[in-house]
Amino acid sequence: MADHWEGVFIVQYPEHIHGGNISLASRKYHLPPHELLDFSANINPLGPSPKSIAAVVENLGLISSYPDPDCGELKAALAGHLGIREDLLLLGNGAAELIYLLVRVLDARKALIPVPTFCEYGLAVLSQGGEVLKVALDEKRGFRLPLDELIKSLEQADLIFICNPNNPTGRLLDGKIVENILDKACSHGVMVLMDEAFMDFIPEKGRFSVITRVGDYPNLAVLYSLTKFFGIPGLRLGAIAAPGELINRMKVAKDPWNVNVLAQVAGVAGLRDQEYMERTLQLIRQEKQFLFRELNRLPGLRPLPGAANFFLVDLTGSGLTSGELAELMGRRGFMVRDCTGFSGLAGRYIRLAVKTHQENIRLIHAFKSILGGIC
Amino acid sequence: MADHWEGVFIVQYPEHIHGGNISLASRKYHLPPHELLDFSANINPLGPSPKSIAAVVENLGLISSYPDPDCGELKAALAGHLGIREDLLLLGNGAAELIYLLVRVLDARKALIPVPTFCEYGLAVLSQGGEVLKVALDEKRGFRLPLDELIKSLEQADLIFICNPNNPTGRLLDGKIVENILDKACSHGVMVLMDEAFMDFIPEKGRFSVITRVGDYPNLAVLYSLTKFFGIPGLRLGAIAAPGELINRMKVAKDPWNVNVLAQVAGVAGLRDQEYMERTLQLIRQEKQFLFRELNRLPGLRPLPGAANFFLVDLTGSGLTSGELAELMGRRGFMVRDCTGFSGLAGRYIRLAVKTHQENIRLIHAFKSILGGIC
Repeated sequence: MADHWEGVFIVQYPEHIHGGNISLASRKYHLPPHELLDFSANINPLGPSPKSIAAVVENLGLISSYPDPDCGELKAALAGHLGIREDLLLLGNGAAELIYLLVRVLDARKALIPVPTFCEYGLAVLSQGGEVLKVALDEKRGFRLPLDELIKSLEQADLIFICNPNNPTGRLLDGKIVENILDKACSHGVMVLMDEAFMDFIPEKGRFSVITRVGDYPNLAVLYSLTKFFGIPGLRLGAIAAPGELINRMKVAKDPWNVNVLAQVAGVAGLRDQEYMERTLQLIRQEKQFLFRELNRLPGLRPLPGAANFFLVDLTGSGLTSGELAELMGRRGFMVRDCTGFSGLAGRYIRLAVKTHQENIRLIHAFKSILGGIC
Repeated sequence: MADHWEGVFIVQYPEHIHGGNISLASRKYHLPPHELLDFSANINPLGPSPKSIAAVVENLGLISSYPDPDCGELKAALAGHLGIREDLLLLGNGAAELIYLLVRVLDARKALIPVPTFCEYGLAVLSQGGEVLKVALDEKRGFRLPLDELIKSLEQADLIFICNPNNPTGRLLDGKIVENILDKACSHGVMVLMDEAFMDFIPEKGRFSVITRVGDYPNLAVLYSLTKFFGIPGLRLGAIAAPGELINRMKVAKDPWNVNVLAQVAGVAGLRDQEYMERTLQLIRQEKQFLFRELNRLPGLRPLPGAANFFLVDLTGSGLTSGELAELMGRRGFMVRDCTGFSGLAGRYIRLAVKTHQENIRLIHAFKSILGGIC
């Protein structure tokens, strides 16, 4: 069912709106940042590639010069990684900048958004005075996308956002389903923004990503992030792939030096570190199994199977609200994502990033100390 | 005389549009970046404060976490440095981001711009579909601002940009003149953006800056940059001071993590390094004298007295166009700013940053080898 977005303008970001706010958590729980274990942001648990860190250190001298406004070397490396043409790519100061930029350039008046999902899509549309139509994912069927309903609602919108795999549900759509949506959207003249920010975490991403189809469809743009998989959210680095004409309009609508030089060099180095990418996928595969099993053994927690590097966890059986559990975990130095900020999830869900084995063990122990559990 | 801006959309930034594009110059002149001396970007010749560099190195671990979206520590340090309230400040990914953001939030339809000046004001307005009215600075009187004409044109605009000291002319307006403009603009309901990106280079800046008046005027916003004085253009860091209501609207219209974490820590450290600030002012004072005198002795070059850390140089007497001179200098490894991109200056002016004594000596020698000169 499509209805209107509750929110109007949110002037101060309330604290539950995003994960990963370590400075806020540090103040709130009176703990130094390094004593906090952050399961609230879905970042590669290995941290950045050692090659990214080395590139940053070696290129510190570049901070006293302007960054390359075209991000030439990075764009070439990314085009190679993604298997698409350079002229279909635009780099951004994180993917979030590019969401706002796209909405602005398209002058999107009515956006269709399957929810729950990443809140910045809706906020970007609302901030430009546009309207948001929501389609609720089917909670009873593991937050499955109601495809027929989505397609029926398409004609009311000028832009649709689809996060694949979806944040926070972790659910992944097959490339064929996405192409079906693309075809229908195309026939209605509706632009589709596929957000593939977590796609690199998917082992067989070729079956699911549509980024190589950019340019084939006039109405397809794909968002990509280097923040999550390459572990550099502090540096900010994202990209968008879109038809060339749209890329040019976005270039004009932004300031020239939006990507800082250290993000550029870290991105290039990370994209060349094949061994790090493989190590990441292996760690995530192992630890997802471990964490899913252990969470399932805890009384009152029910993790949903997730395709990416995080789990949505249903707390209904625990007798605690998500705010209460997040608070109890926070006091113990664990940041978990209270999903109250996500449409339809208020109070009943938390989201957990998959981290290293030792960190995941500590998380499980902390949950046990709160919920009681099998020793 | 106010007329229309020539340009419409510039889809690819042409190479003369900004200084400081080292990657472009490196490719063009087949020289490695470290063999280029960049006089085309007006950056502190000392480079970043050693404390900024130390802060970046010490905080490299933070790149794997999201930056503080509120820039709490940086905002407090900057408020102290500028002598204004924190709630009147918003930090940006360089000042350029904030120009585009302000234009967007104000939905500026008609902007008044004294020219020549920094081109991003006009480009930001045009990129949002607005119109630009230009008032020509009086070239015969050293690019003096034609105050009466400006005030007469005010009522046609909804936003006016004033760069003080002005880039590229180096001319500085007294605080009293600015307040006169502010009063007149206020009575016409016109917003004023004072760009004080180079104000920290002015020894008695208290007489010229109006940043402490933000909040007193409902129509005053002041742009501030940490890129130039603090030598970190590669990291991107700027700020805007504006009435609280406008700050809140700008916060909503941007993505939440626009300032990367290393820019934040470098900014805080630089703002606390009083010794570096004093050393910078002293170096600039000495080297401005030296460079101005030496440039004046070169046949065909006439530097204009400039208040900031750069000189506009009239080449009319040299028999060379600015493009030719920039090319000849480029081949020798010196980047100078061909001012052809600035309204009204095509072919006749270059802009030179003031650098260290040794670098300035090398610059003068290179000019001599091209222009001939007194040995």
